[in-house]
Amino acid sequence: MTRGPQKQFDREIALTKAMEVFWEHGYEATSLSELLKNMGIGKKSLYDTFGNKQSLFLKALEHYAQTTIKEMRELLLSEGSAFKNLKQLLLKWQELHSQPGSCGCMLGTNIADFTTKDVEIAKVLRSYLQQVEDLFCSALTQAQSEGDIGSRVEPRNLARLLLCTSQGIALVGRVMEDDKTIEGTVKTALTLLEQS
Amino acid sequence: MTRGPQKQFDREIALTKAMEVFWEHGYEATSLSELLKNMGIGKKSLYDTFGNKQSLFLKALEHYAQTTIKEMRELLLSEGSAFKNLKQLLLKWQELHSQPGSCGCMLGTNIADFTTKDVEIAKVLRSYLQQVEDLFCSALTQAQSEGDIGSRVEPRNLARLLLCTSQGIALVGRVMEDDKTIEGTVKTALTLLEQS
Repeated sequence: MTRGPQKQFDREIALTKAMEVFWEHGYEATSLSELLKNMGIGKKSLYDTFGNKQSLFLKALEHYAQTTIKEMRELLLSEGSAFKNLKQLLLKWQELHSQPGSCGCMLGTNIADFTTKDVEIAKVLRSYLQQVEDLFCSALTQAQSEGDIGSRVEPRNLARLLLCTSQGIALVGRVMEDDKTIEGTVKTALTLLEQS
Repeated sequence: MTRGPQKQFDREIALTKAMEVFWEHGYEATSLSELLKNMGIGKKSLYDTFGNKQSLFLKALEHYAQTTIKEMRELLLSEGSAFKNLKQLLLKWQELHSQPGSCGCMLGTNIADFTTKDVEIAKVLRSYLQQVEDLFCSALTQAQSEGDIGSRVEPRNLARLLLCTSQGIALVGRVMEDDKTIEGTVKTALTLLEQS
């Protein structure tokens, strides 16, 4: 019985492993051998399935963004008030980036890593940031209509503030020894939203 | 008449040039030849005056931090109300990071660039962030006592929020095509502070 060539690995698992390597070390500092070792596949399989290093990186970044944005959307659309869900999301973000050795947000570290002259990657990163801003904006609009936060500031601008603040949290969390800075930031952002 | 060897270059100018190269490209991607070309000095002068690449980088980072923190301190201690000065500072930060091709904050890009396992560089970066937070905290304490911002949130936590938000602004500014995100963030932060 003749059988075609079988893929000996799970594409999703291999991509998640690649994502973790790129996330920890950044694009430039990630070697092909490290990718192969962590993904547990051979060079031919990598090229056949994911293309070259740049192509694999873009797929890994997309995997990170889609996973993160999906989790964010699910949490924001949970039962209960929009503000309670937003609070949960920010507290989860706080916990994630307060941990010693936290790697930050993979979008943020790549915004910093790539030269600003690389317009292609900037466009990709910008589109993911826009999706995050849009999710914040929907939740804030609902929270205003539910009366849990003030209505004096338009939701779009509150969402922009949350986008920048959450990126700052993930970045600063990379070098902090304790969680005071991030805890104080999230607590204050929530208080100011309630008072807005 | 015998004269000792003269330094043929201005240390401050050469260090500023090195800072600009590291700031734009990051530590890893900066080559010695690029440093020498931009600093306009020879290899021996570089090693005699600044030590190796890592030592030069740390001096360049210190130069960036001291210059930025000095400018920040001067602006916050200008005549007039503390809140007016803080507003000026945030608007200046907004202008700086809304420009196309802005490189971000050199502290932030290095927080992202270096592996979190490099505890030495993390310690250096953390100490600079702490100085920024402390300056924000002093200005916010004064603004509260002058009655220009609310007093319901302690200044230390407001300062932590401003630290994370300003780092996020500089980061996000690297990939944005227009200034809407950053302008909206700064405007909202100032409004929320006034209402706090």
